[in-house]
Amino acid sequence: MVDSLPRASELTLDEKASLTSGRSFWETEGVERAGIPSIYLTDGPHGVRKQAQGGDHLGIGDSVPATCFPPAVALGSSWDAELLERVGAALGEEAKAEGVGVLLGPGINIKRSPLCGRNFEYLSEDPIVSGRLGAALVRGLQSQGVGASLKHFAANNQETDRLRVSADVDERPLREIYLRGFQHVVTHAQPWTVMCSYNRINGVYASEDPWLLTSVLRDEWGFEGLVVSDWGAVNDRVSALVAGLDLEMPSSGGVTDAQLVAAVRDGSLAESVLDTAADRVIDLVEKALAEADATATYDAEAHHALAREVAGRSVVLLKNDGVLPLAAEAGRTIAVIGEFARTPRYQGAGSSQIVPTRLDNALDELRALSGDATVVFAPGYTLGADADEVALTAEAVGIAADADDVLVFLGLPGEDESEGFDREHLELPAAQTALLEAVIAANPRVTVVLSNGGVVRVSGWADRVPAIVEGWLLGQAGGGAIADVLFGVVNPSGRLAETIPVRLEDTASYLNFPGEKGHVRYGEGLFVGYRDFDARAAAVSFPFGHGLSYTTFAFGAPTATATAEGIRVAVDVTNTGDRDGREVVQVYVSVPASRVQRPVRELKGFATVAVAAGATETVVIDVAAEDLAYFDTELDAWTVEGGEYVVEVGASSRDLRGSAVVTLAGDGRSAPLTIQSTLGEWLEHPVGGPVLMAALAQSAEAQGMGAMLADPGLRRMAESIPLVRAASFPGSPVTAEQLDQLVAAANR
Amino acid sequence: MVDSLPRASELTLDEKASLTSGRSFWETEGVERAGIPSIYLTDGPHGVRKQAQGGDHLGIGDSVPATCFPPAVALGSSWDAELLERVGAALGEEAKAEGVGVLLGPGINIKRSPLCGRNFEYLSEDPIVSGRLGAALVRGLQSQGVGASLKHFAANNQETDRLRVSADVDERPLREIYLRGFQHVVTHAQPWTVMCSYNRINGVYASEDPWLLTSVLRDEWGFEGLVVSDWGAVNDRVSALVAGLDLEMPSSGGVTDAQLVAAVRDGSLAESVLDTAADRVIDLVEKALAEADATATYDAEAHHALAREVAGRSVVLLKNDGVLPLAAEAGRTIAVIGEFARTPRYQGAGSSQIVPTRLDNALDELRALSGDATVVFAPGYTLGADADEVALTAEAVGIAADADDVLVFLGLPGEDESEGFDREHLELPAAQTALLEAVIAANPRVTVVLSNGGVVRVSGWADRVPAIVEGWLLGQAGGGAIADVLFGVVNPSGRLAETIPVRLEDTASYLNFPGEKGHVRYGEGLFVGYRDFDARAAAVSFPFGHGLSYTTFAFGAPTATATAEGIRVAVDVTNTGDRDGREVVQVYVSVPASRVQRPVRELKGFATVAVAAGATETVVIDVAAEDLAYFDTELDAWTVEGGEYVVEVGASSRDLRGSAVVTLAGDGRSAPLTIQSTLGEWLEHPVGGPVLMAALAQSAEAQGMGAMLADPGLRRMAESIPLVRAASFPGSPVTAEQLDQLVAAANR
Repeated sequence: MVDSLPRASELTLDEKASLTSGRSFWETEGVERAGIPSIYLTDGPHGVRKQAQGGDHLGIGDSVPATCFPPAVALGSSWDAELLERVGAALGEEAKAEGVGVLLGPGINIKRSPLCGRNFEYLSEDPIVSGRLGAALVRGLQSQGVGASLKHFAANNQETDRLRVSADVDERPLREIYLRGFQHVVTHAQPWTVMCSYNRINGVYASEDPWLLTSVLRDEWGFEGLVVSDWGAVNDRVSALVAGLDLEMPSSGGVTDAQLVAAVRDGSLAESVLDTAADRVIDLVEKALAEADATATYDAEAHHALAREVAGRSVVLLKNDGVLPLAAEAGRTIAVIGEFARTPRYQGAGSSQIVPTRLDNALDELRALSGDATVVFAPGYTLGADADEVALTAEAVGIAADADDVLVFLGLPGEDESEGFDREHLELPAAQTALLEAVIAANPRVTVVLSNGGVVRVSGWADRVPAIVEGWLLGQAGGGAIADVLFGVVNPSGRLAETIPVRLEDTASYLNFPGEKGHVRYGEGLFVGYRDFDARAAAVSFPFGHGLSYTTFAFGAPTATATAEGIRVAVDVTNTGDRDGREVVQVYVSVPASRVQRPVRELKGFATVAVAAGATETVVIDVAAEDLAYFDTELDAWTVEGGEYVVEVGASSRDLRGSAVVTLAGDGRSAPLTIQSTLGEWLEHPVGGPVLMAALAQSAEAQGMGAMLADPGLRRMAESIPLVRAASFPGSPVTAEQLDQLVAAANR
Repeated sequence: MVDSLPRASELTLDEKASLTSGRSFWETEGVERAGIPSIYLTDGPHGVRKQAQGGDHLGIGDSVPATCFPPAVALGSSWDAELLERVGAALGEEAKAEGVGVLLGPGINIKRSPLCGRNFEYLSEDPIVSGRLGAALVRGLQSQGVGASLKHFAANNQETDRLRVSADVDERPLREIYLRGFQHVVTHAQPWTVMCSYNRINGVYASEDPWLLTSVLRDEWGFEGLVVSDWGAVNDRVSALVAGLDLEMPSSGGVTDAQLVAAVRDGSLAESVLDTAADRVIDLVEKALAEADATATYDAEAHHALAREVAGRSVVLLKNDGVLPLAAEAGRTIAVIGEFARTPRYQGAGSSQIVPTRLDNALDELRALSGDATVVFAPGYTLGADADEVALTAEAVGIAADADDVLVFLGLPGEDESEGFDREHLELPAAQTALLEAVIAANPRVTVVLSNGGVVRVSGWADRVPAIVEGWLLGQAGGGAIADVLFGVVNPSGRLAETIPVRLEDTASYLNFPGEKGHVRYGEGLFVGYRDFDARAAAVSFPFGHGLSYTTFAFGAPTATATAEGIRVAVDVTNTGDRDGREVVQVYVSVPASRVQRPVRELKGFATVAVAAGATETVVIDVAAEDLAYFDTELDAWTVEGGEYVVEVGASSRDLRGSAVVTLAGDGRSAPLTIQSTLGEWLEHPVGGPVLMAALAQSAEAQGMGAMLADPGLRRMAESIPLVRAASFPGSPVTAEQLDQLVAAANR
């Protein structure tokens, strides 16, 4: 514990201003005179990237070793909040041991396009998955007295032109898709900090958007922490401070501090605004120091073991026509093909890049688990360097032909995936797919093991191999996890948190990504990922939520009950196989008679459940009313409609096992009738309809209009006419005063 | 000729105001005192819908008989400007004979969605087709001294909520897709009037949008005529007048005239603005009266014959596996099935509905051309009324089974397609498709003949019938035209001016149509119709530009030459069959290295050419530079890039027969470098790159930045950093003053 620190009001203007920007790349500024120390913030959603002395000034250089846990792309596939909370706690221990006060994560941006170069740092294409798992990671981290930095707030869904591009996105998708996960994490886990993103939203820099940083984040969501800029995201320091950006990072060398001081002095910036921001910095420093412990250490071996466990839970078994798990039996030969088996890709490039405490590879780990079976290896291709492809292929085909099982490790080269730029296609390197074709020709009993941070196209070959293991990027212990899954030591339970499309061209954002001239139009609106594929009934390679197990699960008939808080869903899950396993129960909801456009189904809840072979578990999932709400643009508010909600329970968005219907009362909110409401809207309205018809019956002319509305053909044309416009047509008897009376009567 | 009329300045304020709104539903207001008469405006792009006495007050009632020419959906399929000019002239004759000064057409809105209820009144999904054909119709009409009213200006691409909905559309698609056709017609044909649409565009009513009605229409395009409101489209009369809306229709009974007078009196409206509008009304009246002729008549028989010719040119032969044309031979039996053969659908519902001078049906016309063949008929289904479907089907199957040729007439019921509301699906009535299945089972030698104003889904059965004739809505002489095509009296030459999709769900606007809460997002941007299908390489039933002939055409290798005005394309077309025919040569252009996003190909020119059997014609098509330009949102201007243009020549967007590459100098316009330009943009710039690198070489720190840019990995991340932001990072040596010097040097 530290003594309580002074407040901003006790500091000089210069001191206050200096507090609200960095001292260096990774430290906040302190005020020595007042006893306010600086604290460390470091990168790393999946590991603590504490910069070593002498790092380069973009901050990408060497860092001290830390456990490289599976990046978010893998964690997201676990669909397990409890697991992420454990990862968060382990990260917190490591941060504390390194004297780090705030770890810059989690990143929960929506995977709008599979091309986003930073998708490996994000959890899902769905905000419920991102929000639940992001909140769990924050809870774990902060349980150790280390602050989270929820990022990148907001609508930072691409790397191309990220420092300027405006995400031009309509209100409903902004609220319901892009902000929903942030809202959940803030309201349920209160991260110590939120990191504003580089980009603009509808033309306004996130770093200087008072609507985003104050109205929504603080006033609506009740955020109590500090807003920090992404590194270099401040465009105009004074505007940013006013908008609600408390801390600029990194240091501007005092240049922008001086701008704040000048603005206070010339009266263009209220000193109270600066005080608020400085106090938030002081609060953050206090929180960090309260639990700082110079003697803290962590158990690197235990964390490596946790990294392996988590990686195993993140692997997604996409396909298995009976060839997995492998048998570690004498006399069997397992051919391992692909350089990635020996030289793993286990994390992406950019600011999240960790120097691991150790690094396992799949080849060694497979050998360790292979028992009496024989493991042979051929690299098949090289990473980066020029290669004699003919010889490499011949060698691989040679060992495949004689093997009982063939494992082909394929994946994206490291230089394809990084913060800072987007991918341009979904293709694996041609040398790898050519290798695969040659191996299949020699021995079709092929399991493909993928290493990739972003989705790759599998439609060229997926139907011609009996098994596919999606290994994503699995962190430093991923090699062991892959071996665990392949040999059945771990029964796979990962599920896709993003759709694998047949082709890039099929994805909803294809023609609106990455934009041009500083703008990207989110033209697909709400229809991101499975919401689009399902709405169009379009083919996918593997759907959202998909993942196989070595056992099978049967679902009972689900029940859905309206509760005070929302909907309670219950379903029995029976393990119908002979192996213990873990199912991810997914709850999708639709509102068939909704007054607004809705996806055909949306994930609204999920739970993982371990079920012993032959056993049945009852899974109860509470769907909160806030997650059922849509954002009403007329009311400018979240609204829960009354009416029927269809609840579908299943194992993917396209493997629905049962459904139930529940009627909710709703919150009763709806837009009032106005003179701009159409005749159709008036007539449909329970009060307005009779009021209007009664008024029309008052005069002969009005009876004419009434008669027109009684004619089905004319009525259909007339229904779209706003009342005020209908009243202005030649011969209309309705005066402006009468219109006002109608409106008053209808909304009484 | 009439004497010159007084100018607005000679009128009283009340008189001026009264001139700028209607006297009645269809007449302008005159000023008797000053000798200014009123003129008639009437509906009807495809016929003169002069309201008879006592029409209902929405104006949908009976009208005097007029030739019902093929509606725009059919005319668009002719791809023949000369033909449309002849139709326009005939319409002008009829209007003149009825004392009509302005005919309210053509409608050239883009078919954004196949669901738009008014698509039958529009020409195409492509603005080059709409613009060329629209201009031709205006030229023809105005050649007779009758004014056109180019409508609905603009972005009125749906009927749902049309009086309020805001078409939320980005600048490039607005300019390049939705306004391009209007721009062409205005600049090449100067219609006497332009009709503003009901809807809003990006939140502003078209009727009160000064950008649309004045900046773009008059200042940029040089429009010299009058802007009239769509009937009831005025929201706020004073704002509308200021924006550039000259004439409100219909009458408001003096209510809004009084608003203008009051606004002038209280100084909120400059009287000169009112004078300008009133003078435009007077100009219009003068033009109309100048060529008015109370003795004018027209030759109804000749116009009926023209209507038949045009209808024949509008039919699209979608598919023909050798069963067409029919042989009028003794001993052959032709089964005609479907009520539409006897009771034609020949136009859509709403304000364009014509009372025809006569009405042919296909059944009678087929009998007339059948020579020694036998024609038998069964209705198969009924229109509207309840029916004994079993008996109707049995009768149809009975005649089909014994026939040599089976013609099945299918189509959309009249109540499905109207102004005022949109369609909800693309399906033919289930009774019709069930009938078709039964007939195919009895006799597969089926030709389907379609009657529909909007596209219908054919993918359920198109592969199981040998021939499909797309008959659209063909006007009063359509029955004869269908018979002409089926018997080969007319060799079909119509081409699809809109794509026939496999499914509604495949269309680009599917999830953004028709919007909600007063807004519809044009999320697909530039990618409307074939631009979307081709960009996604998505399957279609029949592509844009498609249409078969009874002969075959071979294309020579095209040439493309840069000219002072654009690109001249020439290609030889050879009729390789034994029947005279007409080909539509289509020129598609792409710009592979464009600095902005472009469709994979866009129609930029076309020509119809009659080629005698065995003959070769050289077709020359000039593509104007203005049609090659894109709208640059940074420059806020149309821009023709320099570089390579790929010219593809073909018979549909997916039947490309040859290509040529031509290099254009371009207009040299591009956006200047600024401090917000990224390091990548600076380095790519021919002047800015060396300037920046020279500046970076000045100091050791800068050399560090230079070294970073020399590292390929770091460079790729650094390229997206705006210069001003890079300069603000810790340790940067570049001052704000130096930045300004760099910008000046780069743009020198």
